[in-house]
This record gives sequence, C-alpha cells and structure tokens, in this order.
Amino acid sequence: MKKFHLTAGPSELYFTVEGHIQQALKENVAVISHRSKGFQDMFAFTISQVREMLNVPKDYHIVFTGSATEVWERLAQNCISKKSTHFVNGSFSQRFHAFAEDWGLETQKVEKPLGQGFSQEDYAIDADSDFIAITQNETSTGVQFPVEDIYNIREANPDKLIAIDAVSSIPYVDVDLTKVDSLYFSVQKGMGMPAGLGVWIFNDKCVERAKAVKANGRHLGGYHDIFTLLKNAEKSMTPATPNALGIYLLGKVSEDLLRREMKIVRSETEYKAGMLYAAVSAHKDLDFAVKEERLRSKTVIVIDVKENRSAKDLMEYLEEQGLVVSSGYGPNKATQVRVANFPTHSKELYFQLIDLIEAW
Amino acid sequence: MKKFHLTAGPSELYFTVEGHIQQALKENVAVISHRSKGFQDMFAFTISQVREMLNVPKDYHIVFTGSATEVWERLAQNCISKKSTHFVNGSFSQRFHAFAEDWGLETQKVEKPLGQGFSQEDYAIDADSDFIAITQNETSTGVQFPVEDIYNIREANPDKLIAIDAVSSIPYVDVDLTKVDSLYFSVQKGMGMPAGLGVWIFNDKCVERAKAVKANGRHLGGYHDIFTLLKNAEKSMTPATPNALGIYLLGKVSEDLLRREMKIVRSETEYKAGMLYAAVSAHKDLDFAVKEERLRSKTVIVIDVKENRSAKDLMEYLEEQGLVVSSGYGPNKATQVRVANFPTHSKELYFQLIDLIEAW
Repeated sequence: MKKFHLTAGPSELYFTVEGHIQQALKENVAVISHRSKGFQDMFAFTISQVREMLNVPKDYHIVFTGSATEVWERLAQNCISKKSTHFVNGSFSQRFHAFAEDWGLETQKVEKPLGQGFSQEDYAIDADSDFIAITQNETSTGVQFPVEDIYNIREANPDKLIAIDAVSSIPYVDVDLTKVDSLYFSVQKGMGMPAGLGVWIFNDKCVERAKAVKANGRHLGGYHDIFTLLKNAEKSMTPATPNALGIYLLGKVSEDLLRREMKIVRSETEYKAGMLYAAVSAHKDLDFAVKEERLRSKTVIVIDVKENRSAKDLMEYLEEQGLVVSSGYGPNKATQVRVANFPTHSKELYFQLIDLIEAW
Repeated sequence: MKKFHLTAGPSELYFTVEGHIQQALKENVAVISHRSKGFQDMFAFTISQVREMLNVPKDYHIVFTGSATEVWERLAQNCISKKSTHFVNGSFSQRFHAFAEDWGLETQKVEKPLGQGFSQEDYAIDADSDFIAITQNETSTGVQFPVEDIYNIREANPDKLIAIDAVSSIPYVDVDLTKVDSLYFSVQKGMGMPAGLGVWIFNDKCVERAKAVKANGRHLGGYHDIFTLLKNAEKSMTPATPNALGIYLLGKVSEDLLRREMKIVRSETEYKAGMLYAAVSAHKDLDFAVKEERLRSKTVIVIDVKENRSAKDLMEYLEEQGLVVSSGYGPNKATQVRVANFPTHSKELYFQLIDLIEAW
C-alpha cells in the first residue's frame, strides 16, 4: 500500500517532483560542471522563482547551504557580533541558542514552556544584544510566532539584526522581508523536496555585520562564510560543488507553486488547517496542543491525545489506513501527534485524514 | 544528441543511477524521517557497501558531509593541532592549505609547479608539524601521488596525522587505510553520482586529536564537528536532515561496483588510461601534461595541446561528436584538456574517444 506522509519533515514529495527529476536527468542537470553556463542559467532561474514566490526584495541576497542547521552555524559565525537574543520555546529554537553559546557568544534567552509562545511582555530585548533569533514556526511544538509580532519587535529594535527561522512555514508564511534582515528554510518540508539543501536569504546589513566581525579578528569559516557564498551567488555559482539537482528542483517546484498562485496556496493551507483544528476540537479524546489560538501553527498541527487514549495508537491506526504522521517531539512523544499541512498535502488527503480522526 | 560527459567532475552518471533514483522514489527514501528505522537501515547499508568497496578497517569511521570542500574545513577545525604540512601542486591542494592558514594555523607548504609531483627529497616534514595533507590525485593537473610514496611518508612520520584527498581517484585508488589516518572524497566524480555529498573516513587518532584540540579551548563547530558527526553515525544517523537520496545512491552504486568486482573496475581503469595515454603519445600535436610517468593520474588524464593547435578546438571537435571533456584548469585553460576516466566511462566510449583524437 502506498503510504502518504503527513510528517513534519521530511514529508511527502510535492506531486511534480518525480517528473522534474526525470526531466533533470534528461537535461544532464547533475552531470554538467557547476562552473558552466548551463549551471549558471539553472541557478539564476531558481533564484528568480524563489524571489518571486517569497517576494524577496531586489537588494536581498539568496544563497544555498547544506541544511537550515548549517545556516544557524553561519549566522552565529558571521552575523552575531557580541550577543544574541533567542526566543526559545522548543527544540529548534533551543538548538540555535546552543550554537551561539558554543561559539562563545553572550546570549539572552527568552524562554517559554513547550506549547507556549511569546507576547508583548516578552519583547524586552537586552540593549547590548545585536541579533534577534526568531523561530517563526516551532516544528517541535506547533507554536507559531505571528508576523505582526515580529514587525513590532522590528519597530522597537531598528538597529539589531533580526533572523527568521521559517523552516517549516515556507512557502505558506508571508513575511514582509523588508522588516527583517534574514530568513532561512530547508526544502524537505513545505517545498516537498528531497532533503539536502538550505536556503539563506539576507540583506546588506548582515554583510556589513560580517565585515565588522571579521575586522575584529574573528575567522568566519573557509568556504561558506557570507562573503564567499555571496561572491559566488553573484556569478550564479556556489563555493563548492553543490546539490545541483536540489537547486534545480527548488526552481521547478517554486514555479509550480507560482502557477498555482501563492494566494491560493496560502488560502488552501488555512482551509485545511481550519478543518483539522475543528475536527480536533470536536473530538472528545483530542485537544489542541497549543492553547492560544493566535499562536497555533497553520503548517505543523500538533494534537494532544487525552490520557484515556494513546498517541501511539492514533499513529498506528492512521498508518494502517496509509497515512503517516509524526510523533510528538521529545518529552511530548507519548502524548502528542504532529501533522504537517504543506502544499503537497491535498484537500482530499485532509478530508480522508479528518474522516479517520473522527472515527477514531 | 545525447552528450557523454568525460568531464573531471561532475561527470557522466553511473549507468545504474537513473534506475536507483526511480527505486528510491518508490521506496520513499526522500520522504521518511531521518530519525526513523527505515533511514537507519538505509544508512547502515550504504556504510557497509562503502566499507567493503574501499576495504575500510572496522575501527575506522565513515561520516557524511555536504562536500569534500567541507571536509577540508572540518579537518582544519578538528584535526590540525598547531601546524599542518601541505603538498601543494594544484588548485585543490592549494585550497586546503589556504583553509588551514585562514583558521590561523601554522603551515608548511611543500610546493611544486603545476604538472609536477613530489619525490623522496620533498618529504622533509617539519618536526613540529602535526598533520600532513596529501592530495592523492590533483584534479586540476592530473598529477597523482603514488600510494607507495604515501606509505613511505607514513613510516617516517608515525605520529603525525595523515589525511588523503582522494576526491577524483575513488573508487579506483586502492589505499591501505591502516597506513593513513583519514581519507575523503565526493560522490560526483568516480562514483558517478549527483553532487551534494562528501564522504569522510577517519580513525580514532583523529578523534583523539580533536579531543585534545577542544580541551585546549578551540571551538570545533556547532553541528558538524567530528564528535557530533560520529555520535550520530554510530546510530546510523546524521546531525542535520541529510541528502538521504545521495546516501542511498552511494550505497547502491557501491554495491554495483562490488558486483562488478573492484579488481575488474581497477584493471579496466588502467586499461582505458593506457589506451588514451598511448593515443596521446602517438599524436603529433598532443603531449602528456604530466611528464613523469609514475605521477600520471589514471583517473584524470591531462593532455597538452601543442602550440600549433588549440585546446579549445579539440574540445569543440569532441563535443560536436557528442563527447564533452574538461578544459585545462586555471592558467592551463588555453593549452590543456582534462579527460575523466571513471567506472561509468565504458571501454566502448573510450574507443570512440580515441578514434576521434587520432583523427584530429
């Protein structure tokens, strides 16, 4: 039986990916030199599609890394001068904080328990912090950081760099990039692609920061510092031989989503999330893991299974019907399930999922 | 017209890759969680095949990075204590040397002009050097570093770490790994795979070195330091969501080569190299770029085009017949061509290439 993955990442491939891989093989995408005109054209096409899909301003740069995890490392090395502020409410925001600490940087940790988010009173950023790390969508807990809250933090902190982890909310989340300095994601979640590629968007303020950090004597890395990545990207190239197939697929899937129209992609995401949350609300043995409605993620829907039932049972029951969802993360493994709601997950799939949940 | 790439990397895909990709899509390799049993089984299979293919001793570790370029960075961060010695005779050996310098390490540079290699009198390694970097096959010039010479260096330097760049000689080169401490390569050359994966093999001496370096206060990186890579690999996992499709293909192509038998793979490589070098020798307008026979690479064959003819013409002529080769590297772009001789390049393809060269 074909199983459909509604897992929180990697997840089901976008339905056009297989066809694009066939085409890539025909077009020798993985064969030609990464210093050739053919590669440069392919790279430039992908950048143009990502730029249009996410409305990336012309003066913001887009480069590729091996993963979003790598971007944490690069941000810590290149863009945090002395002290960073981290909003921590789950495993992924926690990990970026740990990276900064490991690099010997001072940090301010604004922490909330799993399942909770942040509000106005949490926004007291230390004056000597020069970098604010915001996880827009905590994949481990299904808590989102509303973009309006990010903009409020921007207004109160015009001079600090703000970097947004949008790993599991792209392409749904619509961030006004002029109000942040950096945003990054990986491709195996909302983009529905095979893993192995991180996408890092940043503005010139990030580059200026790296220059200042370097002038102060810190070594920023040998091949993937912000300057080397940027210098290569300006020629539509990468510093090392890259995952060219991944870069190609990113361009093609972005093009597919643009054809479907981003406003449709977004409204379908909201529609499916609304249906699933309604089914959770109506089920006597299920509850929202995120109690505050405005903080509930639209793309990673986390469900509490009440004590009389078992999350493992729910997962096994769904898998028997061909639908694979993720377990709760870390300490919530036994009591929660996480359901991805990405563009590749059709309404029909969601109808089926909801029917099954109602009957459980 | 289908063009066959005899380029020095990326190169023509191994002929089974397309089929393996189809199978990977069917088996959901790029869909399942990188923390799942299915992933662990796949990872363990790949490691077992690489281990058998390259005769990797049981107590040597195998981990994955984004590229071989990344391995230079990791070696510099983790395994060079104070001073490294680099045998530099081309762009790639040069670049690793630059990485070490950039990380503030002392270096000894043993340098030869492009097209030349090293001999006994070059093996005077500084006593205070703790790390020796050897490029077994310089992709930019086609100069190889014979394995016997590496073993001699080992004998004279039992306590220093020796790391072998075998990027463009794997799987042909047969290194006795017990005589070196680390070896690394990327998959888009001899393995005939899409790029986006580095393979890093190392022994416990490398791990011990990293421990000492860390104890001395150096930060080794947040997610791909040798400890984090190893801790994950011991569970058949990776620190970040990896290029799972690449790891899968590596296992399958290694299995294919093992079925063909490594001694056959190697003797075919030597047979093809011998034929092509003979054709170069016989051609009045061509010459070996590497004058010393024992230093001539079997896997990247570099040809000098004499002054009366043009390397660009030769490349264009071959490409019109459907065969794509690489230009000379850097300063040799105008006067050399580089021809890959990897397992995916069949004898028949080589017959065709040689017929064309003879007729030029």
